[in-house]
Amino acid sequence: MSPAVRHGAMRAGNLAAVLGELDRRGPLTRAALAEFTGLTKTTVSKLVAYLIDAGMAVESGTVRDGERGRPGVVVRLSGHRVAALGLEINVDYLAGCVVDLSRTVRLLRTQPVDNRAATPEDVIARLRELASALLVDAGELGLSVAGGMVALPGPVDRATGAVHRAPNLGWRDVAVTETLDLPLPVVVDNEANLAALGELWFGSGASLGDFLHVSGEIGIGAGLVVQGELFRGAHGFAGELGHVVVSPEGPACRCGGSGCLERYAGQDALLAPGEDLAGLVARLRGGDAAAAAACERAGSALGVALTSAVNLIDPDTIVLGGIFAPLYGWVSAPAGRAMRERLGQMRRRVPTLVVSRVGADAATLGGAGQVIQRIIADPGAHLVMLDATPSSPAR
Amino acid sequence: MSPAVRHGAMRAGNLAAVLGELDRRGPLTRAALAEFTGLTKTTVSKLVAYLIDAGMAVESGTVRDGERGRPGVVVRLSGHRVAALGLEINVDYLAGCVVDLSRTVRLLRTQPVDNRAATPEDVIARLRELASALLVDAGELGLSVAGGMVALPGPVDRATGAVHRAPNLGWRDVAVTETLDLPLPVVVDNEANLAALGELWFGSGASLGDFLHVSGEIGIGAGLVVQGELFRGAHGFAGELGHVVVSPEGPACRCGGSGCLERYAGQDALLAPGEDLAGLVARLRGGDAAAAAACERAGSALGVALTSAVNLIDPDTIVLGGIFAPLYGWVSAPAGRAMRERLGQMRRRVPTLVVSRVGADAATLGGAGQVIQRIIADPGAHLVMLDATPSSPAR
Repeated sequence: MSPAVRHGAMRAGNLAAVLGELDRRGPLTRAALAEFTGLTKTTVSKLVAYLIDAGMAVESGTVRDGERGRPGVVVRLSGHRVAALGLEINVDYLAGCVVDLSRTVRLLRTQPVDNRAATPEDVIARLRELASALLVDAGELGLSVAGGMVALPGPVDRATGAVHRAPNLGWRDVAVTETLDLPLPVVVDNEANLAALGELWFGSGASLGDFLHVSGEIGIGAGLVVQGELFRGAHGFAGELGHVVVSPEGPACRCGGSGCLERYAGQDALLAPGEDLAGLVARLRGGDAAAAAACERAGSALGVALTSAVNLIDPDTIVLGGIFAPLYGWVSAPAGRAMRERLGQMRRRVPTLVVSRVGADAATLGGAGQVIQRIIADPGAHLVMLDATPSSPAR
Repeated sequence: MSPAVRHGAMRAGNLAAVLGELDRRGPLTRAALAEFTGLTKTTVSKLVAYLIDAGMAVESGTVRDGERGRPGVVVRLSGHRVAALGLEINVDYLAGCVVDLSRTVRLLRTQPVDNRAATPEDVIARLRELASALLVDAGELGLSVAGGMVALPGPVDRATGAVHRAPNLGWRDVAVTETLDLPLPVVVDNEANLAALGELWFGSGASLGDFLHVSGEIGIGAGLVVQGELFRGAHGFAGELGHVVVSPEGPACRCGGSGCLERYAGQDALLAPGEDLAGLVARLRGGDAAAAAACERAGSALGVALTSAVNLIDPDTIVLGGIFAPLYGWVSAPAGRAMRERLGQMRRRVPTLVVSRVGADAATLGGAGQVIQRIIADPGAHLVMLDATPSSPAR
């Protein structure tokens, strides 16, 4: 490594260290930042000036220093300029959001649309329109969007930005980011993975311990968060809860298997022909016996699949999200009953079932949140992309 | 932290650094050790002298130094003095082994015995006899046993050394290490976890990638190794493959559930009344149709449970161990077929099924290996326990 490269890397590392402390600990004086980062006060002052110049931090009032009694100016992370774009292609909707650096949700939009009836190119073109409109609106709010993430309902190749297989969309090897062709760096991830991160950052978060977040949609995915990190498996395909076998002789599934959870508890197994989720909820609230029985069946099957999941991965908490959030009152009781019956004797504590706090927006928000994480981990790289070219960062 | 403590910790860390390099890289000169650890040659020489004195390293020939042409004496990790004890209580056998610091298996014994017919106290007393005999024999080989590990067929409390529940033994909250009362530090872990580590260190090891090791016994457990580390779950109870649901309406299981994998593929589902594993293998080799049909059923059920496991945790490889090692020829084909049918469309590659290289000894060896890992990570602490009191370690 040449001295120049090492020098530059050190500066980028210092910038990330200061921004990281502001993110983890909240507002701090420059003196406190120097103490937490181990950098000199002079260096910290230069780095803070650079972050303020780049719109990533602002001064925000004063505090009295405990020991010396001198008032110090407090610096905090700011969301007024830098933001990230979250997008989602699901079977029956498109969604997008803009989240700023302080993780405040600034824009959030959902478009119900039957993506099974369209070609991948048409679906992606429609997503491009949604994304472009969000970028325009973000600009009007004074936000520079540094990067984007597309949530997809199937196993993805994160290196190439393609989805390998999305059986509920009928997609196979679709190059999503390439076709989307937005004027900013865009990556892809699995919808269920991002929804779990959405719950971590925008929902119940760290209070859940290690948790499995279940994304009920037309398909059913899950994301496992272990010690604040996503467990992806060897090929990034972990968490395919929808294809856990509930009953091997059960109905054929689009995945090629049979008796998969999806066939008992996916959206298509719950809705009446032509009905939408709001219609089902209305029937349930009206005391419709057939709707209640469908939820009872779905909940029991979910409990069987979750029993297998708990036996294998042993989480603290299970979060029911996606369509299971509005249906929580009808599916959680039979699911919990099945889990207690099957797990209660072997374990001191059967994992708690809780409802998602972010619901259907989890994946879109998790995607934007993932981009924000990356910006905070390497603010220098993203400043270049934003073309925010303020004065050179201090050492 | 006082200067003295900091000083001691630094020495212990340096000792571990040197031993760790010898373990990872194999034989090295003192000069190479200095380069890899970043310590001075003088410090390395003192630490090496200390390790040699403690019987953890030996000098072993010379190599010519590439640059200067001077011959250098090579030091390597030695197993001639320090060793670890692995023990296992399973439903129908007790087992024990002694593994030395270089991970050579020095002693290995198995006692077939029906532990369901005895009280926990009697079983543990019998294990104490087995352990004591191994310690005597280890002493005659010149080995000092620094610690032990007991593998147990159920979820354990590693902090207290108790097994919470071993349904196939009929045990509940048995304080194993306390009752065992051996004259050395002994800890406990789950049999399936240790068997996975046994495969990692004494079997096919790192070539497997991330792997799920299946321990077929009367119960069926599994251990997941991710990037060379065991995945334990939030409470240490991950990998309970035997209670993954194969068919929710299936036969009642001792765990309180029904249709668990164990009821289709556990040893009791395979053996004829009064038969042992050798008897079953003899029948299979003789072309007995009923035995082949039982293995076909067991393999298919195993394939269904493994399909759920692959969907959830996405390993590279699945290792069939325990009774599934000798039965591999009869259970792996139906298991692989079920997995390919159910997973083949969704995944580019269905995980490979391989046979365990260590078979029934995996847990006992993995337990001893785990103790060896701890000694290498903190040799100073174990020297105190061995009362090997050589001259004080160098800085």
